[in-house]
Amino acid sequence: MSTMRALVMTEVGKTGIAEKPIPEPGPDDVIVRTTHALICTSDTHTVAGALPVPPGRTLGHEALGLVHAIGSNVTGFAEGQRVAVNAITPCFRCRYCQAGFTSQCGGPLGGYKYTGQVDGNMAEYFTVPYAMANLAPVPDSVSSEAAVYACDMLSTGFMGAEHCYLRLGDSIAIFAQGAVGLCATIGATLLGAARIFAVESIPKRQELARTFGATDIIDFTEGDPVEQIKEATGGEGVDAAIEAFGFPQTWEACIRVTKAGGRVSNIGYHGENPNPLPVPLDAFGMGMADKSIHTGLCPGGNDRMQRLFALIGTGRFDPTLMTTHTFAFDDVLEGFRLMQAKEDGVIKPLIVF
Amino acid sequence: MSTMRALVMTEVGKTGIAEKPIPEPGPDDVIVRTTHALICTSDTHTVAGALPVPPGRTLGHEALGLVHAIGSNVTGFAEGQRVAVNAITPCFRCRYCQAGFTSQCGGPLGGYKYTGQVDGNMAEYFTVPYAMANLAPVPDSVSSEAAVYACDMLSTGFMGAEHCYLRLGDSIAIFAQGAVGLCATIGATLLGAARIFAVESIPKRQELARTFGATDIIDFTEGDPVEQIKEATGGEGVDAAIEAFGFPQTWEACIRVTKAGGRVSNIGYHGENPNPLPVPLDAFGMGMADKSIHTGLCPGGNDRMQRLFALIGTGRFDPTLMTTHTFAFDDVLEGFRLMQAKEDGVIKPLIVF
Amino acid sequence: MSTMRALVMTEVGKTGIAEKPIPEPGPDDVIVRTTHALICTSDTHTVAGALPVPPGRTLGHEALGLVHAIGSNVTGFAEGQRVAVNAITPCFRCRYCQAGFTSQCGGPLGGYKYTGQVDGNMAEYFTVPYAMANLAPVPDSVSSEAAVYACDMLSTGFMGAEHCYLRLGDSIAIFAQGAVGLCATIGATLLGAARIFAVESIPKRQELARTFGATDIIDFTEGDPVEQIKEATGGEGVDAAIEAFGFPQTWEACIRVTKAGGRVSNIGYHGENPNPLPVPLDAFGMGMADKSIHTGLCPGGNDRMQRLFALIGTGRFDPTLMTTHTFAFDDVLEGFRLMQAKEDGVIKPLIVF
Amino acid sequence: MSTMRALVMTEVGKTGIAEKPIPEPGPDDVIVRTTHALICTSDTHTVAGALPVPPGRTLGHEALGLVHAIGSNVTGFAEGQRVAVNAITPCFRCRYCQAGFTSQCGGPLGGYKYTGQVDGNMAEYFTVPYAMANLAPVPDSVSSEAAVYACDMLSTGFMGAEHCYLRLGDSIAIFAQGAVGLCATIGATLLGAARIFAVESIPKRQELARTFGATDIIDFTEGDPVEQIKEATGGEGVDAAIEAFGFPQTWEACIRVTKAGGRVSNIGYHGENPNPLPVPLDAFGMGMADKSIHTGLCPGGNDRMQRLFALIGTGRFDPTLMTTHTFAFDDVLEGFRLMQAKEDGVIKPLIVF
Repeated sequence: MSTMRALVMTEVGKTGIAEKPIPEPGPDDVIVRTTHALICTSDTHTVAGALPVPPGRTLGHEALGLVHAIGSNVTGFAEGQRVAVNAITPCFRCRYCQAGFTSQCGGPLGGYKYTGQVDGNMAEYFTVPYAMANLAPVPDSVSSEAAVYACDMLSTGFMGAEHCYLRLGDSIAIFAQGAVGLCATIGATLLGAARIFAVESIPKRQELARTFGATDIIDFTEGDPVEQIKEATGGEGVDAAIEAFGFPQTWEACIRVTKAGGRVSNIGYHGENPNPLPVPLDAFGMGMADKSIHTGLCPGGNDRMQRLFALIGTGRFDPTLMTTHTFAFDDVLEGFRLMQAKEDGVIKPLIVF
Repeated sequence: MSTMRALVMTEVGKTGIAEKPIPEPGPDDVIVRTTHALICTSDTHTVAGALPVPPGRTLGHEALGLVHAIGSNVTGFAEGQRVAVNAITPCFRCRYCQAGFTSQCGGPLGGYKYTGQVDGNMAEYFTVPYAMANLAPVPDSVSSEAAVYACDMLSTGFMGAEHCYLRLGDSIAIFAQGAVGLCATIGATLLGAARIFAVESIPKRQELARTFGATDIIDFTEGDPVEQIKEATGGEGVDAAIEAFGFPQTWEACIRVTKAGGRVSNIGYHGENPNPLPVPLDAFGMGMADKSIHTGLCPGGNDRMQRLFALIGTGRFDPTLMTTHTFAFDDVLEGFRLMQAKEDGVIKPLIVF
Repeated sequence: MSTMRALVMTEVGKTGIAEKPIPEPGPDDVIVRTTHALICTSDTHTVAGALPVPPGRTLGHEALGLVHAIGSNVTGFAEGQRVAVNAITPCFRCRYCQAGFTSQCGGPLGGYKYTGQVDGNMAEYFTVPYAMANLAPVPDSVSSEAAVYACDMLSTGFMGAEHCYLRLGDSIAIFAQGAVGLCATIGATLLGAARIFAVESIPKRQELARTFGATDIIDFTEGDPVEQIKEATGGEGVDAAIEAFGFPQTWEACIRVTKAGGRVSNIGYHGENPNPLPVPLDAFGMGMADKSIHTGLCPGGNDRMQRLFALIGTGRFDPTLMTTHTFAFDDVLEGFRLMQAKEDGVIKPLIVF
Repeated sequence: MSTMRALVMTEVGKTGIAEKPIPEPGPDDVIVRTTHALICTSDTHTVAGALPVPPGRTLGHEALGLVHAIGSNVTGFAEGQRVAVNAITPCFRCRYCQAGFTSQCGGPLGGYKYTGQVDGNMAEYFTVPYAMANLAPVPDSVSSEAAVYACDMLSTGFMGAEHCYLRLGDSIAIFAQGAVGLCATIGATLLGAARIFAVESIPKRQELARTFGATDIIDFTEGDPVEQIKEATGGEGVDAAIEAFGFPQTWEACIRVTKAGGRVSNIGYHGENPNPLPVPLDAFGMGMADKSIHTGLCPGGNDRMQRLFALIGTGRFDPTLMTTHTFAFDDVLEGFRLMQAKEDGVIKPLIVF
C-alpha cells in the first residue's frame, strides 16, 4: 500500500478524509505508522480559522504508533518499535532552542510545526522531523492509550504547573478543568502543592479534578471564584494560579486571586479574544506587588517525553481517565464533530487505528 | 533640643515644614540624625494624592545620617556611627518576609512604611524600625552622597535588572532614563548584558545612560522605539525589557520589543493610570510565547544595602552623577517644588542637613 | 507549679531527668507547655560528645504543645493555642538569615540553638525565641503526632529532596531509609521524581519506603548499591542522589551513582568521621562532569512549618507510620536508651506528656 | 591544494607537524580554513598522556577562520564568512544536550570531541560538526584575535563565575590567574561581584587581574591565602570561590574560604591528581553548612558564542591582553614547547595562519 488516509481541513469550517501518499523519510526523519491519537481542541480552533493553513492540510498533533521507516541520518530506532512524538517538534539547533525555548524554535511558536507548518499526524502514517531529538520510545510499562496523553495534554498541563515555581506546600488555583486544566492539576500535585483549588462547574470534571489531587472544588456558577477562594484562604489568596481556559475573565481572575509575590501561569490560548488582555492595577500593586506572569507552549523533545512516561509508569495518576470516548479512525469525523460541539461530556476522544 | 523640623504634606497638593518632637526609639528602633537625603518622585505622587496619608505626615524615604539613639533590644550599633536605611523597612518575620518578598511585608506593598504608614525621613531625625535587619553601616570607602542612592534608586533599578534574569551577553531595552531607569542601566551593565538600548529623549539623560553602560540610545521622538530597536536587532527584538516610566504605552512597548522567551520587568509606578494595563496578544504569542512579566518594589534590608555599598566602593559607577541639584534642608521646599515641576533638567535633588 | 522536669545530659555519655524552673518569656519569646515530642538521633550524638554542651543542658529539638506564656513584643498568639516550633530557630534578621540561609543564622549552623546554645525542648515547658517568625499554629486538620514530624524530620528530609533540583520524571537514589531518609523519599515523591531507588536493608524500612513512594528497593547486603542502580538504569545512573546516612561510603556512592549533570544532596551528619570526605575523581569527571553537591541544615521558620502542615493535611502521606514506639515522658530515659541502642526496629520514639 | 598541515601528537610526550588531507564536509558539517588559534594548556596535558588518543591525532580546540566548504544539510552560512567554533561541539539532540548539559553530550565530558574523539583544529583546515548549532559568525565589531578567546577561555572562565550564583555585591575569591582564572575574574566582574580576591603570585598576572576587575590581590607566597582573605573579610570569608588551578590544595582552600551558604565553583582539571579530592569537614559544617559545589566543562553552541562576542563588542574588557606571544603556524611547535615549559611569562600563545 502506498497511500494512506488522513483527517484534513478541506476549507475553513470543514473537515474530511483525504487519501495521501505515505510519506518518505528525509535524512533526519522517521515515519511512524499510527496506532493511537487524541483529538485536540486546538484543531477545532484551526478548523474555525485560527491558523492560516492551506486546504487539505492534515490535522492532528497527538499521536503515537510504530516505527515504519527511518531516515539515513537517524540511529537508535528499529522498525516496529513503539514510539511517540510531542506536538511540538523543534529543531534543537537554532538559538531559541539552545536558549531552552524549544517551543519558540526559530521564532514565536515556531516549534509548533504539525498542522501549522506541515501535515499533522491524525493520519495512518506521519513524519517525525529531527527524530533523534523528538522521537521517544514508549516503555513497556506504559500503555499506548496512557502514553498518547504525554504528546500534548500532560506536557502542557505540567508546564503550567512548572511555571508556578511552587514551594512545597504552596497553594494554587487552577481555572478550568478541561483536559489541559486537569493535567495542570496532576502537575500541581506532582510538584508538591498542598491546597489545590480547581475552578470548574461540570460534575464529571470536578470528580476527575479531585481524583487528580484537587483539595477544593470551586464552582463559579455559585459566585465569583476569586471571592470564594479568598474567603477560603482567610482573605489572602493563593501562591499561584493557572489560566487553563483562554478567556480574559479567567486571566484577570488569576491576577486577582494571587497574593503578593504570587505567580500567574498562562496555558490558555487567547487567540479568539480581539482585545489586549487586561492586567487590573489594584490587584497588581500598581505594578509593584512582586507578582509575575509566565507563559509558554507545550515543551517537546524526547527527554521530556521519556520523563513523562517514567512518571506515568509509577502509577501515581492515570491519564486514561480523561478518555471519554473512543472511535475507530474510520469514525474520526464523528469524533471531531463531537469535539467541536463539546457535547456528551466530552473531554478527550481517543482514535484507534 | 527636643524638637526638629520635618518636610510634611499639609494637605493634598501642599507641603510645608513642621516642628515635631525628636522621636524616641522603641525597643527594636534606632533614631538617626539625618545628614543627607534625596527627594523622590514618589513623594510628589503622594502629595498629588496617590497615597491616603493624614495631614502633617512627614515625607521622604531616601536618607542617611548618624546614629542618635538606640532601642533597648538593638545591638551592634554605636552612637555617631554613619548609617543608612532602605526606603522599605520590612519586619523580616512575617510569612511574606520569610518567603523572600520583604517589600510585601504583611501584604501588598506592606514593606513601604515611611510616609505610607508612619512618618517618612525627610526630617532632621528619623526612626528606623526593626533596626537590626534594616539599618546598614556605611563603609568609609563610600561617600554619604553616593550611599544615599542605595536607599531607593539603586536598589529599585537593580531589582529591575535582576528581574530580567539575564544570561551573559543578553540584549535589553530600558524604557526611560530618569533616576530609576538610569540605575536599571547600571544594573544591566553589572549583570552582564551586552547590548543595552536606553530609550530616552533628553540629552543629559542620554549622556548619563551612555556613561552607565548603554550601548545604544533610542530617541522616541525620532520614531516608534519598538520599531527602532527591532530594526537594530535584525527584526528580532531583545531578550529583556524594563519599564521604568509608569505608562501603559511603555508597558506595552516592553511586551512588543521582547523576542519569544523574553522577560519584561516592571519598575514603573502605574497608579496614575485609571485602566488595566494592556497585554497585546500578538506580541504575547496569544499567551504562549514563553514570555514572562516580573514586578516588584524596592528590596530592603541591611544585607542588600551593604552589598550595594560594596559595589559602589569598587568605583565601577558613580551614582552622584545623577545629583543635578543640591539644597540645604532650609531650602527643601524649593527642592520639592523643583521635583514636582520637573524643571531645569532635574534628575535628583540632594538635601544636605 | 513553678518547676518542671526536663531530659538533660548530665555529662558526656549520661542522661537524666532534672527539675528546672519553668522558663519566663523574654520580650520576643513564647513559652510552650509540651504535649508531644520525638527523640532524635542527633541527641544521641550530642550525648556521645559531638557538641560541647555544659552539664545539665536540656536535650531535644522536636516538640510541640500549647501556648503557655507570651512575651511582651509578641502578637498573634493566644494562650492554650496548639503550636509547634522547628528544630532550628533563627533570628530572621542577621545577614545570613536575610540571604535565605536561616539555618546558618549568625554563622555556620548557628540557627541550631536548642541544646547547642540554649536548653532544648524535651521538657515539660520550653522557650521559643523570635516567636513571631518561629512559632507556628497547628491547624485542626493535622494531629499533634503528625505535626511533630515537621519540626525536623520532614523539613530536613524535604530539604534533601529540594536540593536535588528535580525535573518532573527525574530519577533519584536515596541512601538509607531511617526517619530522615524516609522523609527524603516522601519529599522526592512530592517533587515529582519518577523512579526512586531507596537503598536500605531492613525490611520494615524497605516497606515504609515503598509506602512513601520508592519504586525500587536496593538492598546493599546483596551487592554494591551503585552497581545495582547502574544496572537498573542501563548503566547510566540517576539524575540525583541523597546522602541520608552520614558515612564516607554513602557520600562517595552518591557521587558515583549520579550521571553527568547529576545533583548530590547531603543531609547526613558527618561529624563522626575523622577524615575529609572523598570526592572520587573519575566519577566526578576530573571536576568537569557538571555535577553539583548541595548541603544544608533543617530549614525553620513558621512559613515553612505551615506549608508542611498544609501538605500533611492533604493526606498524601502519613508521617506517623514512622512512630515505632510511644513513651510517656515519665519513661523518656528508656526511650532515649532505645534510640542510643537502635534496638527493636526503632525508627522514631514518640514522647507524650 | 588538497592537503594541509596540522599540529599532531605523534606519541605520548611528542608533537609534530603532519600533512593530512583537507577534510570534506559530512552533511551536517562545515569546513573552516583556519586564520587564528590559541594553544591551550589542556593540550599539553593531552600530550603528557592525560587522554588516550591515537598517534597522529591533530591537537587544538581554540580556533577560528573562514568558511571553506558547507555540508549538504547546512544552511545560513556563506563561503568566506568569518566564523568561530567552541572547543565543545555537542550534538544538541541527545538527552544530555536536551537537559542543558551540552558539554556532557552523550555522557561524561562527551561534548569535548576535538582531540579526544576526532582531529582537533590546530590545523590549516578543520571540521565543525553539527554546524547549524555550533558554528558562530563573528561580528565585524570583534577582531579575530579577541574572538578566538571565546572558544574556550572566556566560555570556561565565565561558566566558573556563573556557577557561583552571585547576587549583586557578593564577594568572591578566584584561585589562580592563568588564562582561565583571569577569564573567571572578568566573568565575576560582569556578573556584579563587588569584592574580588584574585589569588596569584606572578606580577604580570596580578596586574591583568586588576585590569579585569579584581579588587584585592592575594599573594599566596606571603601566607595562607585562606587566612589572608578571612582576615580581609572580618573573619567571615567570601560568598563564593572559584578553583581555577586543578590542585587539591586550592580545591580545599575554596571550601575553607567560603562562608556558610557559600558556593564553590570548580573549573580546574584534576586529572593529574591520583587521589580523591578532599572535602574538609569542619569547613563544610559536617555536611550541613548550606555550601554547594559546582562543576562543569566549557559550554558551547553558537548561541553562547554570539553572546560572548556581543560582550566583547561592548569594549568592557579586552581579552587580547592575555596574548603574551604570537607565532606564525610555521612556528607552532615552538609555541607549543613554550606552553609546555610555561616559560617567559607565557599566558596564551596566539597562532596566526
